[in-house]
Amino acid sequence: MDLAGAGARAAELDAADPVAGARDRFLLPEGLVYLDGNSLGALPRGVPEAVAAVVEQQWGRDLITSWNVHDWWDAPRRVGARLARLVGAHDDEVVVCDSTSANLFKALVVAARLRPGRSTLVIEPGNFPADLYVADSVGDLLGMRVVRCEPEDVGSVIGDDVAVVSFSHVDYRTGRAHDMAGVTRAVHAAGALVVWDLSHSAGALPVDLTGCDVDLAVGCSYKYLNGGPGAPAYVMVARRHQDAARSPLTGWTGHARPFAMEGSYEPAPGIDRMRNGTPPVISLLALESALAAYDGIDMVQVRAKSLSLTSLFIALADEVLAPLGFSVATPREPSERGSQVSLRHADAYAVVQALIERRVVGDYREPDVVRLGFAPLYLRHTDVVRAVEQIAAVVTVGEHRQERYAVRATVT
Amino acid sequence: MDLAGAGARAAELDAADPVAGARDRFLLPEGLVYLDGNSLGALPRGVPEAVAAVVEQQWGRDLITSWNVHDWWDAPRRVGARLARLVGAHDDEVVVCDSTSANLFKALVVAARLRPGRSTLVIEPGNFPADLYVADSVGDLLGMRVVRCEPEDVGSVIGDDVAVVSFSHVDYRTGRAHDMAGVTRAVHAAGALVVWDLSHSAGALPVDLTGCDVDLAVGCSYKYLNGGPGAPAYVMVARRHQDAARSPLTGWTGHARPFAMEGSYEPAPGIDRMRNGTPPVISLLALESALAAYDGIDMVQVRAKSLSLTSLFIALADEVLAPLGFSVATPREPSERGSQVSLRHADAYAVVQALIERRVVGDYREPDVVRLGFAPLYLRHTDVVRAVEQIAAVVTVGEHRQERYAVRATVT
Repeated sequence: MDLAGAGARAAELDAADPVAGARDRFLLPEGLVYLDGNSLGALPRGVPEAVAAVVEQQWGRDLITSWNVHDWWDAPRRVGARLARLVGAHDDEVVVCDSTSANLFKALVVAARLRPGRSTLVIEPGNFPADLYVADSVGDLLGMRVVRCEPEDVGSVIGDDVAVVSFSHVDYRTGRAHDMAGVTRAVHAAGALVVWDLSHSAGALPVDLTGCDVDLAVGCSYKYLNGGPGAPAYVMVARRHQDAARSPLTGWTGHARPFAMEGSYEPAPGIDRMRNGTPPVISLLALESALAAYDGIDMVQVRAKSLSLTSLFIALADEVLAPLGFSVATPREPSERGSQVSLRHADAYAVVQALIERRVVGDYREPDVVRLGFAPLYLRHTDVVRAVEQIAAVVTVGEHRQERYAVRATVT
Repeated sequence: MDLAGAGARAAELDAADPVAGARDRFLLPEGLVYLDGNSLGALPRGVPEAVAAVVEQQWGRDLITSWNVHDWWDAPRRVGARLARLVGAHDDEVVVCDSTSANLFKALVVAARLRPGRSTLVIEPGNFPADLYVADSVGDLLGMRVVRCEPEDVGSVIGDDVAVVSFSHVDYRTGRAHDMAGVTRAVHAAGALVVWDLSHSAGALPVDLTGCDVDLAVGCSYKYLNGGPGAPAYVMVARRHQDAARSPLTGWTGHARPFAMEGSYEPAPGIDRMRNGTPPVISLLALESALAAYDGIDMVQVRAKSLSLTSLFIALADEVLAPLGFSVATPREPSERGSQVSLRHADAYAVVQALIERRVVGDYREPDVVRLGFAPLYLRHTDVVRAVEQIAAVVTVGEHRQERYAVRATVT
C-alpha cells in the first residue's frame, strides 16, 4: 500500500467508523496529530465549564458546605463506579484516590497481608519502572523477596512462597498486551493473588476484571481516560477481599466513621477503606467530567477501531518506514497489543522532536523507541496516514539531524 | 464590652488594620461571615483565571509539551519553595505532593530510618486523628511501639528508645499552639527527631522551622493557605537530613533520573526524593495561584491581626455568650493559641447548623465543640462582632432546637 492509496482507504475507514463521532467530544488543536494520548489524554469538551463551576460556584460560593451540597465527599466512590464500568468491575469495587504509585503500594501491601506466611512478591522486569520501585519498597518494608519475571513465564517461578504477582496489562514501552485471564489463572493455581496495573489499557480496550477473576488492580486516569494532567488514580479490590483488606495508608477518609474523630483506625466497610487523605477535588471533578466522553460508547467498537488504526499504521510502517531505518517493536498479532505502536530507530529521540515541529506529537522512550499512542476516541485513520507521511518526511529530509536535538531535554 | 460598643470598636480596629487590604484578594460571597477558613480557605481572586488557563491553554492546547513548556515538571518544587517562605524553611527544603496523611507516612518512616535501633514513636493523643492512624500504621509496618503523650509532657516519656516524636503545631480542636522551639529542643536532647504537622498553623501565624531546628514537617495547603479543596499537601525535610532520607513511597517522580526508566530506585538529590507519583496538576497549579494572596504580606502583622480578632471574640464570648451556655475551650494566653477559637456548648452541632442558616459558617467537632477559624487575610473585626451577635441570636431565639438538627448530617 503506497501513501496515496492509503489516504483514500483511510478516508473510507473513517467514514464507516461507528465511533467517529466521539472526536467531537474533545477540544483538539487544529491541525495537530496527537499520538500521545497514552501519556496525557486530550481535553474533553465539557471539562473547562465543569472545572470553572467547581472553582467559582462550589469552592468560591458554597465553600465548606460543598462537601455535602455538591457531594464532594462521595466523589471518589462515584467516579470510581464510573471507572469500574470501563474495566469490567462492580461499581462498589473501585475508588479514585492518590496516585497510581500510592495505590500500587497499598494494593501490594493489602495482597501480601492476605497471604501471610508467604514471602515472595513477583513483578515483571519490563513493567513501568515506578511499579518496580514500589514493589521493591514494599518488599523492603515487609521483608519479602522480590522476583522479576515475565508474565508469560510466571508458571516457572510461582510456588507456595509467592504471595502476590503484579503485572501491567499492557507494556508501556512495547505496547504488548498480556493475557490477563491466563496469567491470573496460573497465579491463582499457586494460591497467590494478582494485582494488575491497567494504566496502559483502560479506556483503549475492554478490560474484564470480574471475568478474569482479578483480585486487585490499579490504574492511571490521565492517559486514555483523559482525566487531565496528574488526575487522581484508582484502585480496585474484588468484593471477596474487601472485608479483610488492610491498607497501610490510613488517612482519615478511609475510616469507618471519619467524622467521629476517633483515636484509633477502623477501616470503612467495602472499597472506601482504600481511601486515604483528602482528595484533590478540582482534579478529581475534572476527571469526573472527562469520563462523560465515554457515555454510550461501546468498548468492543473502541477495540475494533483501535486495532484498525494500529494495523493500518503497522502496514504503512512496514512499507514506508522500514526502508528508512524503523522497525516495529509492537506485536503484530492483534490480540497481543494494546493501542500503541512502538518503532525502534537509532535516532528515535531526535525523530520525536522533529515530528513535534511538524505537528505530529508522539513520545520517546529509552533507549531507541518512538512511541505512538492511538487513542481510539479521537484519532482518525487519516491521522495515521498523516503521521506516517510526516515521519517519512523528517527522516528523508534529515530534519532529525539538527544539532539542537543532540542534547536531550528533560521531559517529553 | 456590650455589642453596640463592640461594633464601633471593631470598625476602628478594621480601619487601622495594616493587612485589611488583603481581603480584596479573595472572592467572598456577599454578606457571609466565613469562620471555616481553617477547614477550607476562601477562593483567592486570581484562581479562576489561572485554572482556566491551565485547563484550556496548557492541557487543551499544549498537551503533553506542557510538562516542559509550562514547567509542570518543576511545579512541586516551585510551589514548595513558595510555601517554604511561609513556614520559615529554606526554599530547597519543601516540596508539594500527595496528601498530608501520605506525607506524614513518608516523614515518619524517613525519621524512623534515620534513627535505626530505636523502636518507639511518640505522638500526641489529641492530634488530628489521621495523624494517629498514620503513626499506628507506621508502627505496625516497622515493628515500632507507638506511645501517646501530650507535647508538654514529652520530657517524661522521651528516652534512648524513642526514634521519632510527632506533634501538631496547633491543636485542630482546641486551637492550642504548642511550643515548637521548646518541644523540639527536648526531643533533640534525647537524640530523637521531630516531625511537626503545620496544618492548623501555616498561613495564620509565623512558623520558624529553621529557627526551631525542626527535622521534618508536613502540612495541608487548603486551610489557611487557601489552596482549594483537597489541594496537594507539602513535606519539609531539613537540609541536614536530605541525603540520608529514604522515603517508603517511591513513585517515579522522586527518582534521580525519572526519564531514564531504570529498573531500580535511586532517590533524587535533595527534597525531590520526597516526591512520589504524578502530581494532580490542576489542583497543584490552583494552589500556586492561590499563594499569590500572600505576596508582600508580613506574617508578623498577620499574627498581630489574628490575635486581635481572637482576643476580641474571646472577650465578647465571655460577656455575651457565657450566659447562654458557651465556654471558651481555647487558651486565653495569646502565645498559646493559633487562629481559631473553640466554644463548648451542649448543643454545639445544632448551633453550628442554625448559624449557617444565618450566614455565619463555622464547624462542629466532636463531642461539643463549635469551632470558629479566623483567617486573618480576609476576616474583619466587624465580622467577629457579627458572629457573636448571630450566635447569641440563635440560642436566644432557640433556633438550634429545631427537630431537623436532631439527626446529624455526615459532613460539615
